[in-house]
Amino acid sequence: MEWKKNAVGRLVPLEIDGKQLKPFEGAYADQGGGRQTGARICAAASYRDKMLKSIDEAIDACKIQDGMTIGFHHHLRNGDILINLVMEKLAARGLKDLVLAPSALFPTHEKLVSYIEQGVISHIEGSMNGPVGRACSLGKMKKTAVLRSHGGRYRAIQDGDLKIDVAFIAAPCADSHGNANGLHGPSACGPLGFALADSLWAERVVVVTDHLVPFPCFPWSIEGGHVDFVVTVDTLGDPSQIISGTTRITRSPTRLLIADYAAQFVRDSGIMTDENFSFQAGAGGVSLAFVKYMGEMMREKGVIADFVRGGSTQYMVDLLENGLTRFILDGQSFDLDGVRSLRENPNHIETNPFVSYNYHTKGCFANRVKVSVLGATEIDLDFNVNVNTHSDGWLLHGIGGFTDAADAQVTIITAPLVRNRVPIVVDSVTSVTAPGEMIDVLVTEYGVAINPRRLDLLDRLNKSAIPVLSIEELHNRALQMTGEPEKPQFTDRVVALIEFRDGTVIDVVRQLQTKS
Amino acid sequence: MEWKKNAVGRLVPLEIDGKQLKPFEGAYADQGGGRQTGARICAAASYRDKMLKSIDEAIDACKIQDGMTIGFHHHLRNGDILINLVMEKLAARGLKDLVLAPSALFPTHEKLVSYIEQGVISHIEGSMNGPVGRACSLGKMKKTAVLRSHGGRYRAIQDGDLKIDVAFIAAPCADSHGNANGLHGPSACGPLGFALADSLWAERVVVVTDHLVPFPCFPWSIEGGHVDFVVTVDTLGDPSQIISGTTRITRSPTRLLIADYAAQFVRDSGIMTDENFSFQAGAGGVSLAFVKYMGEMMREKGVIADFVRGGSTQYMVDLLENGLTRFILDGQSFDLDGVRSLRENPNHIETNPFVSYNYHTKGCFANRVKVSVLGATEIDLDFNVNVNTHSDGWLLHGIGGFTDAADAQVTIITAPLVRNRVPIVVDSVTSVTAPGEMIDVLVTEYGVAINPRRLDLLDRLNKSAIPVLSIEELHNRALQMTGEPEKPQFTDRVVALIEFRDGTVIDVVRQLQTKS
Repeated sequence: MEWKKNAVGRLVPLEIDGKQLKPFEGAYADQGGGRQTGARICAAASYRDKMLKSIDEAIDACKIQDGMTIGFHHHLRNGDILINLVMEKLAARGLKDLVLAPSALFPTHEKLVSYIEQGVISHIEGSMNGPVGRACSLGKMKKTAVLRSHGGRYRAIQDGDLKIDVAFIAAPCADSHGNANGLHGPSACGPLGFALADSLWAERVVVVTDHLVPFPCFPWSIEGGHVDFVVTVDTLGDPSQIISGTTRITRSPTRLLIADYAAQFVRDSGIMTDENFSFQAGAGGVSLAFVKYMGEMMREKGVIADFVRGGSTQYMVDLLENGLTRFILDGQSFDLDGVRSLRENPNHIETNPFVSYNYHTKGCFANRVKVSVLGATEIDLDFNVNVNTHSDGWLLHGIGGFTDAADAQVTIITAPLVRNRVPIVVDSVTSVTAPGEMIDVLVTEYGVAINPRRLDLLDRLNKSAIPVLSIEELHNRALQMTGEPEKPQFTDRVVALIEFRDGTVIDVVRQLQTKS
Repeated sequence: MEWKKNAVGRLVPLEIDGKQLKPFEGAYADQGGGRQTGARICAAASYRDKMLKSIDEAIDACKIQDGMTIGFHHHLRNGDILINLVMEKLAARGLKDLVLAPSALFPTHEKLVSYIEQGVISHIEGSMNGPVGRACSLGKMKKTAVLRSHGGRYRAIQDGDLKIDVAFIAAPCADSHGNANGLHGPSACGPLGFALADSLWAERVVVVTDHLVPFPCFPWSIEGGHVDFVVTVDTLGDPSQIISGTTRITRSPTRLLIADYAAQFVRDSGIMTDENFSFQAGAGGVSLAFVKYMGEMMREKGVIADFVRGGSTQYMVDLLENGLTRFILDGQSFDLDGVRSLRENPNHIETNPFVSYNYHTKGCFANRVKVSVLGATEIDLDFNVNVNTHSDGWLLHGIGGFTDAADAQVTIITAPLVRNRVPIVVDSVTSVTAPGEMIDVLVTEYGVAINPRRLDLLDRLNKSAIPVLSIEELHNRALQMTGEPEKPQFTDRVVALIEFRDGTVIDVVRQLQTKS
C-alpha cells in the first residue's frame, strides 16, 4: 500500500479496495475537470404503471444482487423504519456484500450491526452513527467504509464515485407517478433533499410512501420522471421519533455561556450588518441557544437577515415569523415547527445538497452564508477539526454537513473546553474532518480563539467584552484541568476513509486495538 | 447517401452532415438504452463572483468560437431582444458557422436570416418560424436544420445529441448567484422551463437579466449552481410583445363551431369524468374557445379536473380561480393573467420539458393528460399530422410541444376542412410531424372523424348530436370544395430533419424549387 502525506499532514493511502484515491490538497485546491456520470436513458413508454404492491415486489423488480449498492436518506431520522425493513428482507434472501449508502444513520438502525457481522453488508459509504460506527471501529466491515459530508455524498453520486444501484426513498407524500415531498401525511418530515442525488443517478429508484395522493403531488421535491416504482406501506416510521423533540435549548450554564459568547462575537465583530447578513446553526443545544440570542441581538439592533440556513427549528421559525429574516433556506427539519413552517410559509424554502453544499458545481450556497456555527469533538492547534471520532478513537459520528457548512465566510466552532474530563482543544486531532484553513474562530466558555489566518477578525474585537485567548492558551488551560490524556491504540488497518467534500482523502480512521 | 423507409412510410437518410441517423420505428418503439451525457465537473471555488458588466464581457468569458452551438429559450416570445442582440455581437466579431439552438423563434427574429445568408449561422437546431423557416426552405442554410419538439429538444440535450456550448438565458428576475425565474420584473414572462436543459448541460451558461434582486431569488426555476455568469442589461425586451395579447378567442363562426364540437366530443364520449379528468389546449383561437366551452360544460356537470395543462391563458386561470380545476401545470404563459396567476396562486405550478414532455425519462406528464386538443396544417388519411410545412411546401412552423402533447390518452386535432382554399385533410401530408397512431380524433366544422384504431371512442358517441364521418368522407368533401390541389416542387436537397421525440427521424423537409 502506497501512502502520501496530504495538505493537513496526514498519511493517506493512494489506493484501497482497488480504488484509486487522491490525497487532500487544500480546501479550495480542487478545480474540477472531467464529466459527471450520465444517468440511464429510459423510455417513458415503459413507465405507464409504476405501482407495486410491496417492498418484496420492488426488490424483485429491481433485481437486487450480491454486491449492489443500496441508497437511503435520513430525513425520517430516528423514526425511520424503512432502512431496517429493506435490509431485513435483503438479508432474508441471503444476499451478501451489499454496500449501504445512507445519507445518515441513527440509533434505531443498530440492528444493521448484525448484518455487517453476517456479511450481508460489506461496508458503508455515507454516514455512520454510534452503534454502526462502533462496529466499524472494531473492524467488523469487510471493506473500508467511506465517510462523506452531505455535499460530498451528492458530489460522489454526481461524479460517479458512488454508484447507487437501487435507492429506496421514504416519501411522506407521493403520487403514483413517483412525485414526492415530505410536507404532508403522518410521516411528514419537511425537506426530502438528501434523496435528490439518489433519484437523479441511481439505476433504480423506489419511492415508498404511507400517504399516496392523487397526481400531481406538489411540490415534487423528488420528480416522478426519475422514479421507477412506487410502493405503499402502512407506515414509514414513528412520527414522534421522525421529529425527535430532542432539539431543546441547553440548560447547562456553561453551554449557554458559549452560545452567548458566539452571538456576542457575531455582533461585536461587525459581522451582524444591516446588509447581507445570514447565518447557519444546527440543532444542538448550544446552536439553538445561539439562534435565540442572535434573534434578540438582531431585534435590538434592527437587523434583518437576508436568510438563515436550517436545519430548521422553532427558533429559526420564530425569526422568520417575527420578520428577523427574509427567508429560511432549509435542508432538513429538526422539529414540528420546522415542518409546519415549510408547509405554510412561502419564504421557508426547501433546499437540497446540490444548491446548498455541492463543491462540484458552479457555486453553491455554502459560501454565501456569512457565519456558520458548528460543533466538534476535537479542535487542534492548527484549528483542524474532528467531528467523526472521539479522543478515545471510537468512530461515532458522520460528517453531516460539517465540511460544507464550514465554507461560510466566517466559521465558528462552539465547544466546551473539556467534555467528560477529556480536553476538546488538543495538540493534534485524532482524525481530521475539516482543515484548519476553513475554521475561523473557536468559542469556549473561557473565551474565544481566533485563527491567526483571520487577524482581520481579531482587530474587530478590540471593543468587545468577550475574552480573547490564543488557541494554545485554551489548550494549556484544558490540559491543566485534565492532565495529558491517554492516546488510543490503533491497529494498522484502515477501517474508514474521511473524504473531503471535493472527493480527496483528508484522513483515515484505523481499527481500535481493544484490550479484551 | 443511404436511405430507408421508416414506420410512417417516409424515406429518410441514415446519415447527414456526418451524423448517423435512426429512422422512426413507431411512437413507442424506442426503449431507451445507453447513458445520458455528463455535464462538466466544475469547482465552486471558481464561482465566487459571477457578475459581468456586459454581453460582450460574457462572450469573451465564454470564449465563443467559430462552429459553436448557442442556446436560447423563447419564453419572451415576440418581445425577446436577446437573441438578436447576442447574434449581432457574434456577427460583428466575424464569427462563422455558429449553430443556433433556440427552443423557438418568432417574427421579431427575422434579422437572423441575414446572418444565415452571411454564414454567421450555419444552421438551426430547434425551432423555426416564418421568415427563418422560409430561408431554410430556400436552401439558405449551409447544413441541415433539425426540428425538434420541446420534449425532443430536452431529450437531445440530455442524451448528448445536441451539445450546447454556450446558453444565454434571458431571465426576468435573477440574483448574483444565477438563480432565476420569470415571475417578477418588467419582463416577467411566467415559467422559464424551456431553458432548463440548457442550464443543466451547456458548457457555459450566461444568465442575462434586467431585474437583479438580492440573493436568494426564489423560486429558482434556473438554479445558480448551473450558471457561469450573470449579466445585467437595461431591458430584455418589449413587455407588450412578451405577453403577446394575440391570444384572443376566435370570432369566426366556423372556428367557434369546431371548438364547440371538440368540447361536445369530450363531454359526450364520456372522457369528461368526475375522476381523473384533465386536458391540455394551446393558445390559438380555437383552443381558447375550447377551454371556455369545456369550462361551461364542467360547471354544468359538476366536474372538477385534476389538472389542466398550459400554456396558460386567462381562460385556464378562470378555471382555476372558479374551482373547476385543482391545478394548472404550466409550461409557458401566453398572457398576463397566466403570469399573474403563476406568481400568486400556489396551485398554478410551473413545469418544464423534463417533467412534462421528455420521452427519455421514467415517465413524463404527457400521457397522464386525458385529452389534448391541438392544431395542424395538414392531416392525412392515415391520421398522420403535419404542423411544420404547408401544402405549398414552405417550412413555416416549429413543432412546439406537438409530438409530446399528442401522447395524451386522447389526442384531438381541431382544424377547418379548408384554409385559404387549400384542403387541410389530404391524402398524404406534405411532411409527417406526428404519426397517425398518436392521433385519435379530427374535429372539423363538418363533424368529427375517429381514427379506426379507436373504435372504442366511436362506440361512445352513439348518443351524441355531433356529426361523425370517416376521414375519407372529410377528405372528399374538402376536394369537392377546392379541387385537387397543386403539389409543391422540391429539389433533392434535404434542408431539415423532422425529429420525433425519441430522436429518430420521422420525415425530412426538402428545398423548394422556386420559379424565380
